Amino acid sequence: MRCETRLVLALDETSPSKALGLVDEVCGHIDAVKVNWPLVLSAGPEIITTLSLLSDVICDFKVADIPNTDRLIVEGCMELGASAVIVHGFTGEDSLNACLEAAGDGEVYVVTEMSHPGGETFTSKHAEEIAAMALECGAHGIIAPATRPERLAAMRAIIGSTMRMLSPGVGAQGGSAAAAVNAGADHVIVGRSIYQADSPASVARSIAEEISSL
Amino acid sequence: MRCETRLVLALDETSPSKALGLVDEVCGHIDAVKVNWPLVLSAGPEIITTLSLLSDVICDFKVADIPNTDRLIVEGCMELGASAVIVHGFTGEDSLNACLEAAGDGEVYVVTEMSHPGGETFTSKHAEEIAAMALECGAHGIIAPATRPERLAAMRAIIGSTMRMLSPGVGAQGGSAAAAVNAGADHVIVGRSIYQADSPASVARSIAEEISSL
Repeated sequence: MRCETRLVLALDETSPSKALGLVDEVCGHIDAVKVNWPLVLSAGPEIITTLSLLSDVICDFKVADIPNTDRLIVEGCMELGASAVIVHGFTGEDSLNACLEAAGDGEVYVVTEMSHPGGETFTSKHAEEIAAMALECGAHGIIAPATRPERLAAMRAIIGSTMRMLSPGVGAQGGSAAAAVNAGADHVIVGRSIYQADSPASVARSIAEEISSL
Repeated sequence: MRCETRLVLALDETSPSKALGLVDEVCGHIDAVKVNWPLVLSAGPEIITTLSLLSDVICDFKVADIPNTDRLIVEGCMELGASAVIVHGFTGEDSLNACLEAAGDGEVYVVTEMSHPGGETFTSKHAEEIAAMALECGAHGIIAPATRPERLAAMRAIIGSTMRMLSPGVGAQGGSAAAAVNAGADHVIVGRSIYQADSPASVARSIAEEISSL
């Protein structure tokens, strides 16, 4: 994934036509578009290929299975045209290595902890271990919540400067793009603030400008 | 899901025609067919609907996201004709509750721990807590590995007699159907031993007979 605007669009839209229209409108202001399973279930996997003609596509599939199944999922994403996948780290090193091998030239980002309330119960307890494992396995980056800038700094201290950090939670969920970038995020992931705006392109441009001015 | 043969076919086949042919052949000997994301990526989500005309379908999607995304994934499965979904428990109570609400009349089975080597690192440490959470939230059952009968018994002691326990790992992975059922499994999940057999229907029938003779 390129690193120009440092903005990733979370495409949490399940209507294929709306999803494509939105990406067509904002693709000049984003480095990538992040899609999830609900869009695949409603639009079919070929939506990944269609979107990949407009933008880099990150399959935010929270891959969390045994190594062989993970391998098949990641290979499927890459064959469809994805540039990157997001996988869970809590399934352990062998699962993560299977994802990395299957990604080939694509990138793998690892979820270290989850930002919703239920994420505190189990995932937060292992975030540091998972970040260290992601570094050791050679993952391309991690996902860490913009809603908790202190966690971004803690994660950056573990992964060092070579791995990327992508931060969801900017905008409607309360996180600030500037705070996330200042805390060490390489890319901010924004959804509702862009796709629910009257002018998605204007909002995307202004967030990209806010980041570039830091 | 019915409880007649107590056998679930793990359909780890990514060719749509082979998948359909296999289910057509063995559907008289199984209670349900379990599908995973690789088949959806290769065949499209409509394969769920097609399979649901032959057998109950369990979407083994290891759902592991924030509550709103989980809800959309589970709703999508149910709209496509699935009877049940398999979700992770480590994403916490709010995510699990979102899955249960979205499932409506469908069933939700919770992964308590994973049987591959990497599953030991993080998931095994929380299996008991996750099983207790699944019980408290009203999940329909849990997934527990047939390769470790002592774990099945430990999980059964937590969830009591009302929740179902589904056990993968029977056959090629080393687990025995009889041992899993004797240790408390309600259903055994079998993949390769059936779909790589010369006569999948014969193998499925003999496993079902082994279970019914216990």
